[in-house]
Amino acid sequence: MKLDIIPVKWSDEGVLMLDQRLLPTEEKWLTLRTYEDVAAGIRDMVVRGAPAIGVSAAYGMALGAKNFVGTAVADLEDELDFVGETLAKTRPTAVNLFWAIDRMKATFQKAKAEGKSVSDIKKELLEDAKAIHDEDIEAQRLIAHFGGQLLNDNDTVLTHCNAGALATGGVWGTALGVIRGAVDQGKTIAVVADETRPYLQGARLTAWELMEDDIPVTLITDNMSGHVMKSGKIKAVVVGSDRIAANGDVANKIGTYMVAVLAHRHNIPFYVAAPLSTVDLNCPTGDDIPIEERGREEVTHVKGQQLAPEGVGITNYGFDVTPNELVTAIITEKGVARAPYVYSLKAQFDQ
Amino acid sequence: MKLDIIPVKWSDEGVLMLDQRLLPTEEKWLTLRTYEDVAAGIRDMVVRGAPAIGVSAAYGMALGAKNFVGTAVADLEDELDFVGETLAKTRPTAVNLFWAIDRMKATFQKAKAEGKSVSDIKKELLEDAKAIHDEDIEAQRLIAHFGGQLLNDNDTVLTHCNAGALATGGVWGTALGVIRGAVDQGKTIAVVADETRPYLQGARLTAWELMEDDIPVTLITDNMSGHVMKSGKIKAVVVGSDRIAANGDVANKIGTYMVAVLAHRHNIPFYVAAPLSTVDLNCPTGDDIPIEERGREEVTHVKGQQLAPEGVGITNYGFDVTPNELVTAIITEKGVARAPYVYSLKAQFDQ
Repeated sequence: MKLDIIPVKWSDEGVLMLDQRLLPTEEKWLTLRTYEDVAAGIRDMVVRGAPAIGVSAAYGMALGAKNFVGTAVADLEDELDFVGETLAKTRPTAVNLFWAIDRMKATFQKAKAEGKSVSDIKKELLEDAKAIHDEDIEAQRLIAHFGGQLLNDNDTVLTHCNAGALATGGVWGTALGVIRGAVDQGKTIAVVADETRPYLQGARLTAWELMEDDIPVTLITDNMSGHVMKSGKIKAVVVGSDRIAANGDVANKIGTYMVAVLAHRHNIPFYVAAPLSTVDLNCPTGDDIPIEERGREEVTHVKGQQLAPEGVGITNYGFDVTPNELVTAIITEKGVARAPYVYSLKAQFDQ
Repeated sequence: MKLDIIPVKWSDEGVLMLDQRLLPTEEKWLTLRTYEDVAAGIRDMVVRGAPAIGVSAAYGMALGAKNFVGTAVADLEDELDFVGETLAKTRPTAVNLFWAIDRMKATFQKAKAEGKSVSDIKKELLEDAKAIHDEDIEAQRLIAHFGGQLLNDNDTVLTHCNAGALATGGVWGTALGVIRGAVDQGKTIAVVADETRPYLQGARLTAWELMEDDIPVTLITDNMSGHVMKSGKIKAVVVGSDRIAANGDVANKIGTYMVAVLAHRHNIPFYVAAPLSTVDLNCPTGDDIPIEERGREEVTHVKGQQLAPEGVGITNYGFDVTPNELVTAIITEKGVARAPYVYSLKAQFDQ
């Protein structure tokens, strides 16, 4: 394992993002010089994955502050409100987005209360964005550590979408962090990756990053996972999450619910790996999580090629909710939470 | 409804096939002048769908006989053995292929036993191929009649792959026959169609033929069906089959098993529509049905566009098996069979 994939970085020029829309056929970095560029990068899915969106939003706030030309703290506050509002409008489901914006605002409020200057506040905001990034990577290292222990030597693990280094601040990933953790612990792990239509994060991103780290990966279409599970090959399922409700209901990439139902039928453990920043204690259940609906072209076209008849009706749900009774365990940086999640998740926050 | 889609036709020039690989963006007919062309047409999926493959194979046998230049009945017999062998090698799962070849051979044997000439036998073989085609369309009309009664006015029905007119001798289809039957009975039916990766029969074919017949259709990716079922929108699932074992286990397009498991979880009836020529009493259970594995390009590329990293491992199962306990009913031209299928299917043959 090289453990060197970091999809979002800060630089003096602005925020650097690996353009995930072009993977795996092209590796191109974009330099985003304004917070509007960062918002567009999140909205247009240059970067995706809940933790990566959180880190990007934090950098977006820092960039918005950095580019602020006034001298009054009150004006910077207005500007940051506006920056936060712009960033918050990009994607509705990933709670890390709102979490990061709120944390950056709290950092601003603290500095303001301490009577700091605009220039000092800008520095503090950048430091906190970098801290969010560092903490995210550290959280993944711990998720990898705790989650890796749940896998056995020679397991074949199925994953859906991309909850890898690319979906986070980098290095380990959440679901792929669990796999990397097991490999790091000396276990041999093979991965079966759902391609994850319509956006093909499995085919494009998970396959790419596992191959980068020399972890064996077999790509299947989403509708093959039931057959593969029935064959007895799969020993565990590990996925990430875009938002986890207080009761352990898990919003994640569309199709996760189907995988969970199938895993349940075949008595295969179904693990969810996510940092605590993905857990939303303000959401009592999965019914309270907004599900993004996306555009028709993702379904009717692939790479500009028309698949379906002109004018066909479509729906394009970006996410679904897996009820807590199908979730074997939730792995965070604090350890392994099990049902009843309403207590175990809360306990991790209080830890 | 226009009810005019017939994907395979006989003509004096040879077998005419609508090239389903080009749908929905192009409607092009191929003229297949030799049985080798017909075999290639089946193998390369110009035509697909178990009943359509059966009809095509029957025409392929008739074409092989027609093009035979000898005068000895024994030589024609050798030639037909060879033609049958060539056709049988094209696709392994659809039992209608072998059924049609065997029936054509039996027709030959009967004519031979009656002392008919090569020229007369050729005529009888063509007549029987046309009869197979006519019987297939009639079987679908009856499937539409019986199956349509299982749907209620204003139902939204989910289907997987294409078990429509395009997958059969034409006009009604099997699963789409059930839907057309309900519409023909005056009911309003809306369809949700799984796109059905990797070959996209749902996006390309089911969406196209339902739009041709003015039946409302909404296209989703395969991994959305669980979420859509959970929302309560789907009142029934109807699929076709490539082979049904004596015990009612159903081989059908990859992904059908997942849809069946999800339908079961949501108490949605799961119907299978197929002519009796798809039922293989010689296969005791689904475990005895061979599952075709197909090439890697179908998974790694769409319309020539690369989706996955160079050299990634893949598996590409063409079909899966849905166990009989998940099947609410099997609709054939003889009526509606219910569990225990080992008796009800046998009884339909004896009817």
